[in-house]
Amino acid sequence: MASDFYALATPGIQGLHPYQPGKPVEEVERELGISNSIKLASNENPLGPSQLAMEAAAASLKDACRYPDASGFRLKQALSDQYGISPETITLGNGSNDVLDLIGRTFALPDDEIIYSEYSFVVYMLVTQSIGAKAVVVPAVSWGHDLEAMAAAVTDKTRVIYLANPNNPTGTYFTQEALHSFMKKVPEAVIVVLDEAYAEYVSETDYAKGFSLLADFPNLIVTRTFSKAYGLAALRVGYAVANPQITDLLNRVRQPFNVNIPALDAAAAVLTDDDFLQRSVSNNSAGMSQLEQGFIELGLSWIPSVGNFITVDCGEDAASLFEALLLEGVIVRPVANYKMPNHLRVTIGLPEENRRCLEAFAKVLKK
Amino acid sequence: MASDFYALATPGIQGLHPYQPGKPVEEVERELGISNSIKLASNENPLGPSQLAMEAAAASLKDACRYPDASGFRLKQALSDQYGISPETITLGNGSNDVLDLIGRTFALPDDEIIYSEYSFVVYMLVTQSIGAKAVVVPAVSWGHDLEAMAAAVTDKTRVIYLANPNNPTGTYFTQEALHSFMKKVPEAVIVVLDEAYAEYVSETDYAKGFSLLADFPNLIVTRTFSKAYGLAALRVGYAVANPQITDLLNRVRQPFNVNIPALDAAAAVLTDDDFLQRSVSNNSAGMSQLEQGFIELGLSWIPSVGNFITVDCGEDAASLFEALLLEGVIVRPVANYKMPNHLRVTIGLPEENRRCLEAFAKVLKK
Repeated sequence: MASDFYALATPGIQGLHPYQPGKPVEEVERELGISNSIKLASNENPLGPSQLAMEAAAASLKDACRYPDASGFRLKQALSDQYGISPETITLGNGSNDVLDLIGRTFALPDDEIIYSEYSFVVYMLVTQSIGAKAVVVPAVSWGHDLEAMAAAVTDKTRVIYLANPNNPTGTYFTQEALHSFMKKVPEAVIVVLDEAYAEYVSETDYAKGFSLLADFPNLIVTRTFSKAYGLAALRVGYAVANPQITDLLNRVRQPFNVNIPALDAAAAVLTDDDFLQRSVSNNSAGMSQLEQGFIELGLSWIPSVGNFITVDCGEDAASLFEALLLEGVIVRPVANYKMPNHLRVTIGLPEENRRCLEAFAKVLKK
Repeated sequence: MASDFYALATPGIQGLHPYQPGKPVEEVERELGISNSIKLASNENPLGPSQLAMEAAAASLKDACRYPDASGFRLKQALSDQYGISPETITLGNGSNDVLDLIGRTFALPDDEIIYSEYSFVVYMLVTQSIGAKAVVVPAVSWGHDLEAMAAAVTDKTRVIYLANPNNPTGTYFTQEALHSFMKKVPEAVIVVLDEAYAEYVSETDYAKGFSLLADFPNLIVTRTFSKAYGLAALRVGYAVANPQITDLLNRVRQPFNVNIPALDAAAAVLTDDDFLQRSVSNNSAGMSQLEQGFIELGLSWIPSVGNFITVDCGEDAASLFEALLLEGVIVRPVANYKMPNHLRVTIGLPEENRRCLEAFAKVLKK
């Protein structure tokens, strides 16, 4: 073939390295020739899915030959009932990744500036690169967002700021007071995206509540997902909440059928499954304590986390430790791509999974 | 709110009008206060889904809390087995709409040119507008693509050409010879997208076979979908086949989890359901004859179609006819947005649905 097709792509996409997701357990086991491994790598809900959600998804399959409801009428109504937000402020996405991407594409062009924090969720970087916009990466403080520095980084070229609260992969959070102060400093023409993917796990009373600030700050967009505490990562449902003008714009760019029928129905169902959410949060809280206690005994330090994961400092380059854990059948997540080569991110599992994880750490650290 | 958020969007998106999908039956019935209506509006498979596909999707739900396999390993393998195409040439999409959009974003920037035909699938226009690229719309011949004129429309600003074969909403097709001749005229630096969403329905022996031209034309991308003959519109699976460089680029831009777990598993399963595909095609062929015969009796003409729909000329503005059919419980698709105000597009249904449709036409035409 005569042409170099890479040279035909837009400059942003030429420089783009795709998201490196955690491999499915079956693929890791196939590659390593192991079995009975546990995956604590993708911040998934270890309880398995909600029974109500599974039943709703299964019941929906009889309509598999029909297109989904592009308006997402019933799911938006369920979200409206749950959170007191108007359906006309909701944009549904194929996971919150999808809405994070839509937002960037809606407001930023090549050479515009997009601000995000060091060590914050990698999708902000990918969105920025795919647009060909300029990434303004603000150094973190104690692994978390430096909101004052982020506000100070705004220029007349800034179009979008991405915030993660809690942040992945560090688990840090910021307070309502800090967010309110930040929003007051940011010009209304700059879109602020508050990614609350892990919000349901947070019990801290001073944690910022994005929905409560939407009325005062029309440039604020809050994103949420069903992939974490709601346990529906497989089905891909997330959403953005914002003023009706922004919502209208995002829905113009959105693929009309980006959320499929089983996903729409499962998400609406799981919102009614209070018991499942409560068990998810309780399991997470207990598992966090279990892992923290275990890491103390192992002499490891970690970044205090309010999410469903804990990012532990291995005190040395963690790559070989990661491989050694794999051979013990414990799959965790390296975060060297975040320039955190000494850390490993461990998702909170079931008690037995956490125990196996700690035992594997003990074993491989001895070597 | 002080700001006009519409003014903050990129110019392309400011001018964008979202895709207007057909409404779900339940929504139409709720609005009109009718029941027992039939939907022949969205080119869906009237047989209902494949049993094998439904079972695979249902079985997958136990893993609903886990992320999908971002590589789509098993589905790509199944496609490879079915069509003799290499997995490294396949990009999976959330329906083929998703890959059509990815292609535009990968190769075109604002002010670049994108070529498509008059009366061709509206998503090409939407993709072009959302990028802010310049649409070069080539006049149709007999409601179909004028490939010679499309090749002649290429300039040094042309990045992408979208072709639909068969075309929606007109049902026209072009031959292997015409496509081959076209590809020879188009410079290799221009990406040609051949959208074959309705390919499985076509029995004409001179119909162009996109896959057969991929080896000779590395700038060709063929897109397919599971939403039509494979009956999985609800689940959102489509794909692009192209040279490995293009495939690598598209996979950089693609959301890694754009196809969810039940969709991946159902699509792999339905590829093995030869009986379902054969019944879908047979029902379509018989239904096409039934509708054509009925339209002859009603004195209506139509655009000859090789798809799973037929676009009928009502001889007058069809808007009121559409409304009258709705009140008879027959939902078809107006195509005034394609500048075809006198036409209505009717999806081939089950024999009984086609009969009801013709009866409704007869009744409302008399008025």
